[in-house]
Amino acid sequence: MSEYNHPYKDVDFVIKEIVEFDSFCQNAGLADINSEFASVILTEAAKLGSDVIAPLNTSGDNQGASLKDNKVQQADGFKEAYQQYMENGWSSLTAEEEYGGQNLPNLFGTAINEIWQSSNLAFSLCPMLTQGAISAIKHHGSEELKNTWLPNMISGLWTGTMNLTEPDAGTDLAAIKTKAIPNADHYLISGQKIFITWGDHQMTENMVHLVLARLPDAPSGVKGISLFVVPKFLLDKEGNTTSQLNDAHCTALEHKLGIHASPTCSMSFGDNQGAVGYIVGEPHKGLSYMFTMMNHARQDVGLQGLGVSERSYQQALEFAKERIQGTHKDGSRFSIIKFPDVRRMLMQMKSSIEAMRALAYVASNETDKSRYAKNAQDKTKHFSRVELYTPIVKGWLTELAQEITYLGTQIHGGMGFIEETGSAQHYRDARILTIYEGTTGIQALDLVGRKTLFDKGEQLAELLNDIEMTAKELQQKPQFNNLAVSLENAITTGREARQWLLDNAQTDKSAAGSVSVNFMMMFGYICGAWLMAKAALKAQALLDSGEGERAFLQSKLVTTQFYFDHLLPRIKTNIAIIQSGSDSIMSLAEDQF
Amino acid sequence: MSEYNHPYKDVDFVIKEIVEFDSFCQNAGLADINSEFASVILTEAAKLGSDVIAPLNTSGDNQGASLKDNKVQQADGFKEAYQQYMENGWSSLTAEEEYGGQNLPNLFGTAINEIWQSSNLAFSLCPMLTQGAISAIKHHGSEELKNTWLPNMISGLWTGTMNLTEPDAGTDLAAIKTKAIPNADHYLISGQKIFITWGDHQMTENMVHLVLARLPDAPSGVKGISLFVVPKFLLDKEGNTTSQLNDAHCTALEHKLGIHASPTCSMSFGDNQGAVGYIVGEPHKGLSYMFTMMNHARQDVGLQGLGVSERSYQQALEFAKERIQGTHKDGSRFSIIKFPDVRRMLMQMKSSIEAMRALAYVASNETDKSRYAKNAQDKTKHFSRVELYTPIVKGWLTELAQEITYLGTQIHGGMGFIEETGSAQHYRDARILTIYEGTTGIQALDLVGRKTLFDKGEQLAELLNDIEMTAKELQQKPQFNNLAVSLENAITTGREARQWLLDNAQTDKSAAGSVSVNFMMMFGYICGAWLMAKAALKAQALLDSGEGERAFLQSKLVTTQFYFDHLLPRIKTNIAIIQSGSDSIMSLAEDQF
Repeated sequence: MSEYNHPYKDVDFVIKEIVEFDSFCQNAGLADINSEFASVILTEAAKLGSDVIAPLNTSGDNQGASLKDNKVQQADGFKEAYQQYMENGWSSLTAEEEYGGQNLPNLFGTAINEIWQSSNLAFSLCPMLTQGAISAIKHHGSEELKNTWLPNMISGLWTGTMNLTEPDAGTDLAAIKTKAIPNADHYLISGQKIFITWGDHQMTENMVHLVLARLPDAPSGVKGISLFVVPKFLLDKEGNTTSQLNDAHCTALEHKLGIHASPTCSMSFGDNQGAVGYIVGEPHKGLSYMFTMMNHARQDVGLQGLGVSERSYQQALEFAKERIQGTHKDGSRFSIIKFPDVRRMLMQMKSSIEAMRALAYVASNETDKSRYAKNAQDKTKHFSRVELYTPIVKGWLTELAQEITYLGTQIHGGMGFIEETGSAQHYRDARILTIYEGTTGIQALDLVGRKTLFDKGEQLAELLNDIEMTAKELQQKPQFNNLAVSLENAITTGREARQWLLDNAQTDKSAAGSVSVNFMMMFGYICGAWLMAKAALKAQALLDSGEGERAFLQSKLVTTQFYFDHLLPRIKTNIAIIQSGSDSIMSLAEDQF
Repeated sequence: MSEYNHPYKDVDFVIKEIVEFDSFCQNAGLADINSEFASVILTEAAKLGSDVIAPLNTSGDNQGASLKDNKVQQADGFKEAYQQYMENGWSSLTAEEEYGGQNLPNLFGTAINEIWQSSNLAFSLCPMLTQGAISAIKHHGSEELKNTWLPNMISGLWTGTMNLTEPDAGTDLAAIKTKAIPNADHYLISGQKIFITWGDHQMTENMVHLVLARLPDAPSGVKGISLFVVPKFLLDKEGNTTSQLNDAHCTALEHKLGIHASPTCSMSFGDNQGAVGYIVGEPHKGLSYMFTMMNHARQDVGLQGLGVSERSYQQALEFAKERIQGTHKDGSRFSIIKFPDVRRMLMQMKSSIEAMRALAYVASNETDKSRYAKNAQDKTKHFSRVELYTPIVKGWLTELAQEITYLGTQIHGGMGFIEETGSAQHYRDARILTIYEGTTGIQALDLVGRKTLFDKGEQLAELLNDIEMTAKELQQKPQFNNLAVSLENAITTGREARQWLLDNAQTDKSAAGSVSVNFMMMFGYICGAWLMAKAALKAQALLDSGEGERAFLQSKLVTTQFYFDHLLPRIKTNIAIIQSGSDSIMSLAEDQF
């Protein structure tokens, strides 16, 4: 077991220096908001995270959630922690004022979510799914629907779930079979859903399930899916929760590798008369409504990769400083952090995490920039950047989280394999992140397909041009000459990959899918290098002007150098693989495997 | 849960075509032994593996081992499986005839161990540790010791354990505190050991613990450690097991991430009068005796990486062929193996496994070549090659096993995270492999230190020269021109890395430790490329002459190409990292982490 401490120095630096949040707030006309205010808010969130939510991480893993009489019992302490989370107003931080929200920028949500996720990945999923459900209703629901459901979800009084997957419909949502039959002012829903995160619990008076289902006249495939709100308990005419259970309940809990305290439910809708549901928006548009939420949900899962990595790093660092295993020539002993290979692993974790955080926060702020844009062109520009970043944030951050939590256990040696140490939990918990909300393969396909081939690589070209501006800045500083050359080379490599994709995707229909994951990872490493280079420029400028904390700023120069030495060279492998195309992937007959 | 099928086609191919086992047997004068005989033996072992041992893998994981009254109860079915293993004579396969062994070459042991390890990693550890104990006694024990202990260990009637680690002495064996006091014809041992694999069980009538301890007059540090045989039950004068328990017992079992059915014991020696022990060899030489065993034990753990990877691959492949998730334009559905990214993952697993197997078997056969060498020079040459391969086999194979078992769960999508699917078990089980018998960092240090710097890179230069001979063979075949160029480049890269190490290790004392893991991984990839290239040459020759199974031989050409496209390019990253040296690893002060 380990404590969690909010890495406030790096978080503050990213918000202030890399996102450049203060100038964003000024441009957006957000008079009362700035990076200092963010820091104050985060300090408060960090207290709840460290003192209340993080201590439940180990106990929640050991106890897990349990099912009795169709009711899910959450792990001990979770209800009380959730209560504090709700009462302190964290649930409403970024929601609209109209429904009781505090209307703070999206970046605040990202920065506090990192805290919940580092503290307790299983716990953090409950608010995260609720945010997704709120977003679906907010963007696509009727006024009546919004007024009925949003205030209590935003206040945290009710939580939300997302019901997509069915036994035969995982990634392939076209295969969804759940039915919705019109019945007076509502619909009667019936069907089976699986893998429903926090599908039931006893922490709140009610829950709101968002359910994908088919109307009787629905076309087949993905164009025949509609979205419904299905409450756990029915409401009375005033919109208050009654004691009448809807015809929807949890039938089983999955026995999972990790996130044990997050109940993963099999849900049964309409075992009797049918579950009462209310349609969100128009019929047959459910899938496109789901896609609206996806940018947010996928970036949130990417952020979970950051969160669990930070936690794993903190624990490994503490161990490496305390574990005595070496002996000096004079007989005195020393801790393993002095060994170069242990330092290499710690640096790998640390510099990856810093790059991941920078990208997650920059991507999050693009949502704010789109929202507060002064004109339609800027709005579109920033929204397109959100769309481009999303699969990279989800795919790259969660893949790196596997490596980082692996190194976290590796640094512990034999102790890492012992469950009581706690490091293995991070490794187990992290494993889901490259799977849910679309696997790494799905993210990568999204990047090469909808985000690159669809616009002939225009967005990607713009991103690379933005990165080139930083490379030019580096060139002007003699001490950053090496970084400048490496970043320029990386940009060239990125452009080669983009061109290869554009050149080959038409003539070889397997090309895009064959290179996609390497393509996505490559752009992750390039984005990371870009933002670390920005960080180094800013850190050096502050050092030159005598501002800020020297030791921290100097460490930024080192982690940037390490990133360029150890992480960025991976794109040499990525580009070689990409340029080898699909031949050796597609040649075998199935029975030759 | 999944079945295990012995991958006999590839195994036979590796033994016959890559190891070239038949010409080895001829040269060694082993008249009755050849690759056909090996194939027959392996078919028998595969039956026991598939029918008896593999089905216990899931149940053993679920049930685990348990401790009651200082006795460890193994999982259900293990005793009966062990009984069959023993009665069928598998325990004595490679042991010396003098003590009841069958005296078959080491390669037989490797090939059957792969079967046990794929079938059930937890089970396989019991025989594996016994082999290690046998080896220690055989190489260093007195005649009396050998006659007393070896026959029953070789027959499998008694199992063996290795007791090295103590709470404060993991990698750092200098810190060992366990004591051995002379007492008539034996010693009285007292102390605590942890992480003792299969430290107790009820499968056999007796057990033989090998224990590192210090004599009263021992110098401090690693030069004061002696090795002792400590039986579970004392023997009578005829050497038969009595009912009298020694003063040694298991006090606790570890709660681990994986290999649940392998009891990991805390052992207490000498709680009362002291545990009766017999010294192996001379006083104070225990550490060097341990090192004798290490080549074998470490190669065995590398082989475990191969074993669990093969099992994970078989399960993922079956899933990918059965899981329907795509829809053709005509509405017909298809399984996920048709998706390029799923194929990419399967090819990554398959081609890695083939390269891993080739290296493990070639390394194993070097032990045989050393043993049967006609002169001292050849003996030394092959033994040096064993020494060089060992850290690569251990380090590279077990690191790849992490990636492969990760991909195995990834291919399963959401089902991969559900424990009942069984894929997650392989991922959990594999996690120990880069830790025990020396972490990856320790293997890498061994390679850069004792195996490279110590002889000024001579062994490594010879290996690269051997690889170059294969590159020249490739050059002579027009269809292999691309492979030839890639392999030549890889050799050049390997030479650059070697030279960098030789040039920098003296002037920068952190250099070797900073680059070691990348150095070790790079040589793994290069060795893999070499042996896959050999495989392609052999496969093509057989195809040209119309021999062998066409579909299999053609698949070898494809997996080789895939290896060169996807695995070998990783050395571009490795060399860049190596040449960046230690600066960015060593620069931070400890409180800057």
